[in-house]
Formats: sequence, structure tokens, C-alpha cells
Amino acid sequence: MLKLRAVRVKNALVRECMAEFLGTFVLLLFGCSAAAQVKTSRETKGQFLSVNMAFSVGVMSAMYLTKGITGAHLNPAVSLSFCVLGQVPWDRLLPYCLSQLIGAYVASGLVYLVYYDAIMDFSGGVLTVYGPNETASIFATYPSEYMTLGRSFLDQVVGTGMLMLCILCLGEKRNTPAPAELIPPIVAVIVLGISMSMSANCGAAINPARDLGPRLFTLTAGWGTEVFTCYNYWFWVPLVAPPIGGVIGSFMYVIFIEWHLPDPDQLENPSTLPTISDKIKQPSIGLEL
Amino acid sequence: MLKLRAVRVKNALVRECMAEFLGTFVLLLFGCSAAAQVKTSRETKGQFLSVNMAFSVGVMSAMYLTKGITGAHLNPAVSLSFCVLGQVPWDRLLPYCLSQLIGAYVASGLVYLVYYDAIMDFSGGVLTVYGPNETASIFATYPSEYMTLGRSFLDQVVGTGMLMLCILCLGEKRNTPAPAELIPPIVAVIVLGISMSMSANCGAAINPARDLGPRLFTLTAGWGTEVFTCYNYWFWVPLVAPPIGGVIGSFMYVIFIEWHLPDPDQLENPSTLPTISDKIKQPSIGLEL
Amino acid sequence: MLKLRAVRVKNALVRECMAEFLGTFVLLLFGCSAAAQVKTSRETKGQFLSVNMAFSVGVMSAMYLTKGITGAHLNPAVSLSFCVLGQVPWDRLLPYCLSQLIGAYVASGLVYLVYYDAIMDFSGGVLTVYGPNETASIFATYPSEYMTLGRSFLDQVVGTGMLMLCILCLGEKRNTPAPAELIPPIVAVIVLGISMSMSANCGAAINPARDLGPRLFTLTAGWGTEVFTCYNYWFWVPLVAPPIGGVIGSFMYVIFIEWHLPDPDQLENPSTLPTISDKIKQPSIGLEL
Amino acid sequence: MLKLRAVRVKNALVRECMAEFLGTFVLLLFGCSAAAQVKTSRETKGQFLSVNMAFSVGVMSAMYLTKGITGAHLNPAVSLSFCVLGQVPWDRLLPYCLSQLIGAYVASGLVYLVYYDAIMDFSGGVLTVYGPNETASIFATYPSEYMTLGRSFLDQVVGTGMLMLCILCLGEKRNTPAPAELIPPIVAVIVLGISMSMSANCGAAINPARDLGPRLFTLTAGWGTEVFTCYNYWFWVPLVAPPIGGVIGSFMYVIFIEWHLPDPDQLENPSTLPTISDKIKQPSIGLEL
Repeated sequence: MLKLRAVRVKNALVRECMAEFLGTFVLLLFGCSAAAQVKTSRETKGQFLSVNMAFSVGVMSAMYLTKGITGAHLNPAVSLSFCVLGQVPWDRLLPYCLSQLIGAYVASGLVYLVYYDAIMDFSGGVLTVYGPNETASIFATYPSEYMTLGRSFLDQVVGTGMLMLCILCLGEKRNTPAPAELIPPIVAVIVLGISMSMSANCGAAINPARDLGPRLFTLTAGWGTEVFTCYNYWFWVPLVAPPIGGVIGSFMYVIFIEWHLPDPDQLENPSTLPTISDKIKQPSIGLEL
Repeated sequence: MLKLRAVRVKNALVRECMAEFLGTFVLLLFGCSAAAQVKTSRETKGQFLSVNMAFSVGVMSAMYLTKGITGAHLNPAVSLSFCVLGQVPWDRLLPYCLSQLIGAYVASGLVYLVYYDAIMDFSGGVLTVYGPNETASIFATYPSEYMTLGRSFLDQVVGTGMLMLCILCLGEKRNTPAPAELIPPIVAVIVLGISMSMSANCGAAINPARDLGPRLFTLTAGWGTEVFTCYNYWFWVPLVAPPIGGVIGSFMYVIFIEWHLPDPDQLENPSTLPTISDKIKQPSIGLEL
Repeated sequence: MLKLRAVRVKNALVRECMAEFLGTFVLLLFGCSAAAQVKTSRETKGQFLSVNMAFSVGVMSAMYLTKGITGAHLNPAVSLSFCVLGQVPWDRLLPYCLSQLIGAYVASGLVYLVYYDAIMDFSGGVLTVYGPNETASIFATYPSEYMTLGRSFLDQVVGTGMLMLCILCLGEKRNTPAPAELIPPIVAVIVLGISMSMSANCGAAINPARDLGPRLFTLTAGWGTEVFTCYNYWFWVPLVAPPIGGVIGSFMYVIFIEWHLPDPDQLENPSTLPTISDKIKQPSIGLEL
Repeated sequence: MLKLRAVRVKNALVRECMAEFLGTFVLLLFGCSAAAQVKTSRETKGQFLSVNMAFSVGVMSAMYLTKGITGAHLNPAVSLSFCVLGQVPWDRLLPYCLSQLIGAYVASGLVYLVYYDAIMDFSGGVLTVYGPNETASIFATYPSEYMTLGRSFLDQVVGTGMLMLCILCLGEKRNTPAPAELIPPIVAVIVLGISMSMSANCGAAINPARDLGPRLFTLTAGWGTEVFTCYNYWFWVPLVAPPIGGVIGSFMYVIFIEWHLPDPDQLENPSTLPTISDKIKQPSIGLEL
């Protein structure tokens, strides 16, 4: 349709960066809009759970939009983990991360435009990071008051580790693969699980782009430098901890599961495939594998 | 079954209009009934989230009923977008939109019949648009008090744009298609995401028929002309903004994703298909594509 | 397993009745247990929505248990509708309904046993139908106080009609069929939609067995004859209205959709299949059909 | 990837135990983290339902990680049931159970590390089993105050019985099988149903490892021996009742459904397959089977 195929971008990297930009844009537009809706309506039009759910819908939609093009990272910690695993070339890392960051920034701007009236009404026109009328948490994440630095670092490491640990198995034909066409909603459910169980401490960013993009936006839009200086310059935690957690989670998967699966070439000639456990007669609910 | 095949409607357009009528009827019957349930029970038998969820169930059911017949538009903004994209002929536009509108009107009437006792009990018999006992919002959407006109227009543009942006990719074999038989629940989840994240401002109609049909019904059923005059004749916003947003969202999809996918004819001869990115070894979770 | 195949029941009808009994038992055990949990915990361990969701999980589980054996009716209104549609022989109707009724009764008894301590603690040992400490609504459904008789009859007709209208299309290969293996969760979502949108008036029984079984149980377990006499002998409404509604919904489906689908024999020779609409180039999201 | 295939564990049992360890670890990390989030945020960052949902996400993720390796038991009651059914050899029982227990213990420790600040802030530094600031229930389950011993035993028997009854049918090709690749989310939904409907009495452990692992952790981490002695040494109930319930539920499935299905060898030669019910013309929604 639209006889404009001549405009097709020739450079693969540019096409991929456009996809990562768009995917992260969609992810943040769903998620931060929901945060704005719940915050500015004082939880009358949604609740904590609906913010978690909206981020998950964003994950699903962004993955359907981009998974065939880049693998749908949407997250620098995921991109880094795939690079470390040898599944994405290292020269993709920086361009992908920048695209994700810009997508997150632009999405934050659009959320601000759409919810400008609501934010002004809620905050009385004073854009702050602290207090009952703060609105900074609509965009970036901030730690709970009781958190120590080391603990919040651990929190982000564990959350991102769970993400990689749980998604790496989904495409593995030698184990229990998820249907390829349904990986987006299944990853979305995993992200929902993480945000329902590990967001009390620091908001479960588990994604440097998802956190830095909106934070930079709030810096430029009138919340001031406090978005970076508050909680003793805490902002670096969701930037540094998730990549470390993602790599640790990936290695946990490799060490506990992947190393011990049969070799892929054996799958092509199933007659030589050693049974994983000769003594186990597969239970009924595993028969279909 | 029932040896009445002789009654089959010969005219394709009439059959399609019957399907769009029935689909929009089902969508609104689920959604507005849930709104009536939550409103008249004063949130003791449901909450804001359950209204969002009921509309999504309505989307899913309506799509299973009609997708094989018309593509399950259920929304003039969707019909228009498909016409602009060249996928539905322009002479379908008006008949489909009228069918959707009538379906929405009739569904509103049935909701009113079923919830008549509840609405009378809740409102004390006075059908109003404003105040704590207003019941007009069970049917059509109304803006929050803090909204300016331009902002509410933008809100409807963005919401409908997200809808088209996120659903257009679902059937694309050259990207990550969703399973064809599961597109109805996946679209339903996307609609749920939009209503959880973009309904605080104006109720997320994102559908002229869904809004005008119930509004016309309330006009005729006793709520008076205020349903049109209130908020300075705001009613035209959910009629005009969604078609514009739908077209913008469709173009965003085309520009960022579709133009850069391989040509369809290349898919039939995969050996000549240029790899989207030669340098990328697909990550595990993308292997199945 | 277990070399007891000799005990296989030879009579098909008995096997089918055992399946309908077990399925309805599972449906009610999930649903009424959730009602007991929410009621006796005074909504601290669940809420209205979680009762709706538990009934839906019950529908899904019961369908996986029995759909290959009887079609998983679990509801006399569904059985009757299938008989009227000519898809189930009339001599199955009464045995199925009785099996469903007994399954619902036995499940109610088990719920009472499991929640006996909780019910006694909540109610102070007085089993009543009215008042803040009533526990009868854990089992059967009762109308809201504002309901008139005709309205509650209409409510049950519409709810059951929606059920049949929305599920009859799911297996139709000539339209948009749902995946056969996923029909149980999809029907469960439809039931969830009905209970989120049409349970404010009368509790959305839409199933004579689901209502009469528990009501008979409460009669025998100490709630007294009031479970039948209350609200002016209202108990007959969820017995009589759902079968009527189911048949009406089935006919709506047949009239609006099924009559106009291509003949089944044409599907086996697709080259002769008349296109539903020659002028419509299917939209992207319909391509996969 | 990572040329370390030399480290592959040769012993099948060890590989399987590693999988059961990891799976139960993931299950508990999701579930107990969510319990900590809801408890320490005083339900401002989640609610009872979100704990149920997080456990279900844990079930799904753990099953995708391990189902191809061990069948994804994650629960000694499930392992025992499969042994009794003859589908898992008895010599697997003890190693699996121990692996599950250790996985649950280690996950509890990590939850404690991640939520240490939050738990200290919530409890004022006093780790107790009773009272408004108790935190023991983040980890193990405890009965409601009104429960008698026999009733809580029955509660755990019924809950685990429902689990086995509902999951055993999912892989049965002679009935209505679920898609093999989607069994993890479907089992997760069943577990969600159980925890929404049968957790008011005793917290729905229905899994000895899920209960004993965290209880042992709280014993060693500072909650004291009260975690075992409280409620008159109640801790043995979720250890003993679930295996009994799992076996009873399995037998209910076998007696009501499996015995009466056609013989498996007949499926390979469908022409000799006796129709389950010759007189029933399958209803529309069953046609696809």
C-alpha cells in the first residue's frame, strides 16, 4: 500500500533503531500514562495494579511491533545480556540503547502533553519530587524512604535477573518452548509478575532507558535538578544495577538449565537424541512435549 | 440446522452491516452494563478496572462474532483508517459507520431496560449529567472538569492512534504475527491497556459510534439536551478526534515499521529473502520466528 | 495406569452424566468457595471481582475436564439451547440437567464443610438470608432490593442470551474460529465479562443448576425455607429465565451470523467458495484467516 | 554459546534436581516477594489478589523453565501423586522433594535480603508471628484464628485435590487437551483460582515445600521457634494434608474421567475408535476437537 516503497530505509541498523525507538515509545506511553491516570485521579480511576498491568500491555504491544526486526529488547539491560550471550553483535549495543532512551524520552513528553491539565490540577501547578502532591514518580522511579543504597541496588539486580532468567527459556525447543507467536503476551505476564512482587522498594524500573529517559524529560520540563539529586543522587542505581542483574540472571539460566540440554544438532536427528531421563515415564501433562 | 437457509441475505453489504451492528451491540452491551453495575452499586460490585475489563471482553466477543465477515471494525475510526490504508473500499465506510452507530444505540437501550430499577434507585429518579448521582456517564463519555478543549482533543487523538499503531502489526507475517485465531483476545488486551492508561481525561471513547450512539440514546430517554450541550458542546470531540488519531497512528506504523519490511513476494521464495539484519544472530527468544 | 480398566462404564449416557456431574461440581467448588472467602473475610482476602474470576477459572477447568465427553454444558440452559439447535439429542436433556444439579448440590456441601468454621465465625452461628451477616448468598443468588420481578427476569434472559450468542461462534470454521484447544479459557473470559457487567441486579446465575443446587443445599443445611420464600418466592426466576434467554441468544446468533455464512460443503472445495465480500480486500489484521 | 559444554552434568538425576530447585526458587521468589510488597506497603502497592497473581506468574515461569526436564512438579504433593499414578519412578520422589524444599528455603532468604529494609521499617525491627505488625506470614502460611484443626486439614486436602483433578486432564489427547506449549499459563490460572477461592482458611499452601522451606528460613532468620509452635504446632498440616489431597484428587480424575476414555492404542487407528457417544452430534463449539 501507499506507493512509497522508495522511502524504505536501506541501512539495517537504522531500521532496527527505528524499531527499538518505537517499541520503547509504546512501552512508556502505556506505562507512564497509566501512572499519570492513577496518580492524578487519586486512585479513583485505577490503582497500583493497573499501572503494573498497563506496563505489561506496553511490553506485549511493543514486542509485536518490533520482535521480528530486532528481537524486541526495549531495555539496555536486555540488549547487554544478549550481547554477552553472543546472540547480538556488540556493535548493536550502543545504537539500540540510545534509541531506547530517546523513545522513552519522547514518550514521556507526550504523556506530559496529554496529562498536562491533570498534572497541573493535581499538583496545584508546582512540579515536585517530594510530598503528597509530587508528580515526578509518574515518570521516573524513586526509592521508598526506608531504603538503604545497597539494598536498592540489590533490588534492581534481582528484578532484572528474574526477567532474563524467565524469558531466556521461552524459545528453547529442547525444553518447553512457548508458542513463538505468543511470546509477547507471556513476557508481558512475567513483567507483570515482577512489578507485582518487586516494585515496593524502588518501583521496579529494571530498565535503564525506562528510567533515565523520563528522568531527563522531567529535568527539562520543570521538575528541576532534584530529580537527579534527590535521595542522595540515587538515580544511578536503576542505570547500573539492571545490566548487572540481567547478566547474572542470564548466567543462572545457562548454568542451571541450558548447559544440560541435549545438543541442538541431536534434535535434527531425534533417533540419536539421548533421553533426558531414561527412567522417567513422562507424566500426563508432559506427554505433549 | 434449521432448514431456513432460504432466508440467507443475498447482498454482501447487508450481511456485513448486520455483522457490524451485532458486533458493536455486543461491545456496548458488555461495556455499558459494567459501567451501570459499578455506578449503581457505588463500586461495591466492581470498580473502575472492571468496566475497562468488560469493554475488553466485549471487544473480544464482538471480534469472534464478526471478524470473518467484515474484519471486525466496530469503530468508525478503525473503518476510516482501513479505507485510508486501502484495505477496505471507501463505499463501505458510511454503511459500516451507520451500522455501528445503530448497534451502539440499541445496546444502550437494552442496558437501560436491564438497569432501569438500579438507575432509578441510584439517581432517585432524576436523570442528570452532573453531580454525585449523575448517570449519564454510564452511557456516553464526558471530560474531567479540569480538561481544556485542545487537551481533550489531543487525548482522543493519542488514544486512537495507539489503537491503530498496536493492532496493525498483529497480522504481519513478515514481522512477529500474533496467532490469527487469537487476534481477538490480543486486541482486547490492547484496548484494556488504553483504557487503563488514557481514560482519566475523557473516558477513552476512541470510537465515535461507541460515544454518539449512547449519547443519542440518553437524549431520547430522558437525560435531556444537556448530554450534548454540557461542557460547552464537548460531544463533538470523541466524534472528530478519533478518526484523525486512527489515521495518524496508522501512518506511524507504516512509516516506522511496514515500509521497511521485506516485500511480500519475497516471502514466497524465502531463499531470495534479504535478511533483515545479516549481522544479527537472532536471540533465543526470537528463534521461533 | 492402574489395571482397573475393567471398571470402565459401558453405558455412554452414564459416562456423560458422570462428566457433567464432575464438571458442575468443579465449577461450583471454585465459585462458591471464592464467595465464601470474600464474604467471611469481609473482603480482606478478595473482593467482588475475585468471585467473578474464580467462577471463570471454574468454567475453564470444568471444560477441560469434560468438553471431549459431553461438550461441557455445565448448565441446563446451555443443554437446552443445544437441543433446540439440533446438536444434542433431546433424550440427553433431562439426565444432563439432573447431573448438573447434583454436582452443584454436592459442591455446595463441600464448600460448607471447608468453610464451616469461617461461616460460623462470620455469622455468629445464625444462618440467615437477610442482613449484614447473611451467608445464604455464598451459595445461591438473590436479587438486589430495588429489583422488580419483571426486570430481574429480563436480567437473567439477557445474561444467558449473551452467553449463547458469544460462545456459538467460537468453533465456526467459516467465520473466525477460536483455537479448539483454547475454547475453555475463552469461554471463561466471556463468563467473566457477563459477571462483571450483569451481576449487579441478581447475581448473574444464568444457570438453573448453579442456582438451584446450592439453594437446595442451604435449605437442607439450616438456612430454612426462607431461601425459597424470600423476595416473594423469587427463586423461580433463575430457573425459568436462563433457558429462555439461552434459546433467544442462540437464535440471535443464527439469524445475524450463521444463516449468512457459506455452506459447509463449499469449504471442502475452496475453489468454489464464494467470497463473502468480493469487493473487500481483507485488512491486514484479517489476512491470516 | 559459551564454550563450556564440558561442564554439562552427566547424571540425569542431578540435572533434574537442579531444575526442580530452580523452578521452586522462582515460584517462591515471585510469590513471597509479592507477599512482602503487599504486607510492608500496608496494601498501598498491591492487595491480596496481587499476591495470588504473583504466585501464579511464578508457577508459569517455573514451568517453562523446567517442564521439559522433570515435568515441573515444584511441589512434593504433585511428585507423590505422579509416583502413585505410575508416571514418575518412586526413586525420584525424595530427591525431588528435597530439591524443592531447598529451592523454597533459598528463595525465602533472597526475599528477606531484598525486603530487609522494608520488613524492619514495617515491623519496627521486631520479627513476630502474631499481631498487626507480624511478618511471618510473608513467608510461611498460618491458619485463620477461627480454624479448628480438622477443618484446616480438610481445607488443605480439598485445595490440593482440586489442583491435581484440574491439571491431570490438560494433556489428555482423548479428551480436550490444552495446547502443550500453553500448559504453563493454564496451570497458573488454575492455581490462581485455588488461591482466590481456598486461601481464606489457611493461606492455600497446598505444597509442603512452599510452606516448610520458608518456615525453616524464618526459624533460622530470627522469628524464633514460634513459627513452628504457634497455633498448637499447626505447621504439620500443610506438610501432611496436601500429599493426601493430591492423591485423592488424582483418583477422582481417574475414576470419573480417565477410566472411561477410549484406549490409547485405538487413537492410532481412529477408524476403530468407538465414538464416545454415537447419539450425540457434537455441538458447534466442540466441532474442532
